[in-house]
Amino acid sequence: MAGRLRGSKVLLTGASGRVGEAILRRLGEAYDWRLLDREPPTGEPDHEYVVADVTDEEAVREAMAGVDRVIHLAGDPRPEAPWDSVLANNIDGTRTVVAAAAEAGVEKFVFASSNHAVGAYETDERVPDLYRTGDEFRLDGTELPRPSNLYGVSKAAGETLCRYYHDTTGMSAVCVRIGNLTAEHPPVEYERGQAMWLSHRDCAHLFERCLEADYEYEIVYGISDNDRKYYSIERAREALGYEPADNSVEF
Amino acid sequence: MAGRLRGSKVLLTGASGRVGEAILRRLGEAYDWRLLDREPPTGEPDHEYVVADVTDEEAVREAMAGVDRVIHLAGDPRPEAPWDSVLANNIDGTRTVVAAAAEAGVEKFVFASSNHAVGAYETDERVPDLYRTGDEFRLDGTELPRPSNLYGVSKAAGETLCRYYHDTTGMSAVCVRIGNLTAEHPPVEYERGQAMWLSHRDCAHLFERCLEADYEYEIVYGISDNDRKYYSIERAREALGYEPADNSVEF
Repeated sequence: MAGRLRGSKVLLTGASGRVGEAILRRLGEAYDWRLLDREPPTGEPDHEYVVADVTDEEAVREAMAGVDRVIHLAGDPRPEAPWDSVLANNIDGTRTVVAAAAEAGVEKFVFASSNHAVGAYETDERVPDLYRTGDEFRLDGTELPRPSNLYGVSKAAGETLCRYYHDTTGMSAVCVRIGNLTAEHPPVEYERGQAMWLSHRDCAHLFERCLEADYEYEIVYGISDNDRKYYSIERAREALGYEPADNSVEF
Repeated sequence: MAGRLRGSKVLLTGASGRVGEAILRRLGEAYDWRLLDREPPTGEPDHEYVVADVTDEEAVREAMAGVDRVIHLAGDPRPEAPWDSVLANNIDGTRTVVAAAAEAGVEKFVFASSNHAVGAYETDERVPDLYRTGDEFRLDGTELPRPSNLYGVSKAAGETLCRYYHDTTGMSAVCVRIGNLTAEHPPVEYERGQAMWLSHRDCAHLFERCLEADYEYEIVYGISDNDRKYYSIERAREALGYEPADNSVEF
């Protein structure tokens, strides 16, 4: 889990959210972080902290100075978020951040996508078998998006933006379709959540691999090594060296 | 080519553009059209004509009254269009039209996507062989988007929006990745354009099939049956009954 502090700067957008918290709790000492969030910090922050909205092009461009890796988490995180919000915060906001990163010569761009980008593969015919051990259905990241809500539409658009900036500038980009992140233990009495559980420990490890591995453009699933699963973690293992430690069946 | 005038109404957005012109020239008599464009008609229109912008939710909702099929062409058509324009006109505009169609109970929604949604598959390694007869590389519509410009990003987002509204409402939706549409003859001394040529005759026939065939959700390529090609037309044949008559090699 030890990171390699290279004297380089990692920008973390949406730093005060749930995923940011999971990352910083374990990797806080490993990197020279610049945190960005539109909310001011609660208390004295442990790292450089920029208060800015990701839709503010000038502020984002300034925050990119001296940065060579980016983890972009910022956006409206609500699956039920209305279109106007995900259009502005998630689609336009991601475009602002990824374009500024490419322009600044950032080497690696890590984008927090979501299981909601492919939630509509969970059809009536497949559910609930899909969530259970022994079911063979797998999504592996090569499939077309099939969002279950407008939030998922916005995450799919973010993936395509990453693809575009990778193709046109060579910046490495990885999109992590994050499952169900909870601390301590998997969701209780929620089969879907158990099937796509991502422990805090595996979350931090996966994002560390995204910062450290060599890749071109990847879409991977961000879940622990659950017995129940319908997302393949093979591509995360192969492309990033992801080695998850947790499994929701053990709880 | 004979349409079946069922007394039902077909809404055609972006009616005054190049694709709209190709459709109306051959199918003008076959359907009861409601044309929509943000520019007023030049001269007396042959069909009901609504002047409205597709980003105007209320105007779009009104234009959907009594409509059971939609061909959505409206948007900024420039491959070099800047982000702000494609965000508003192509992404937000398409969302407005497809959501209004789903809400109004429209049966079939035909979306004009573009070859630019997958333009970055034309890598330095593949070009120019890709454009030549005998090269075996094919895109078939199951591949992830790989846009060559922000216009292509916006078209890929439109495809995902169609998928979402299909999945949540059951409205049939087809996305046509339109190639290089020209009247009379294929582009001269432009191999790429010859490989993705779509004649006016085949364009009208393909959109007629999109209005008439039974399907759930499809992504198809809109090109003639060119000897040179790197887009498969098999899915358009199978799902829609598309039978192109033209081939750029014959010119």
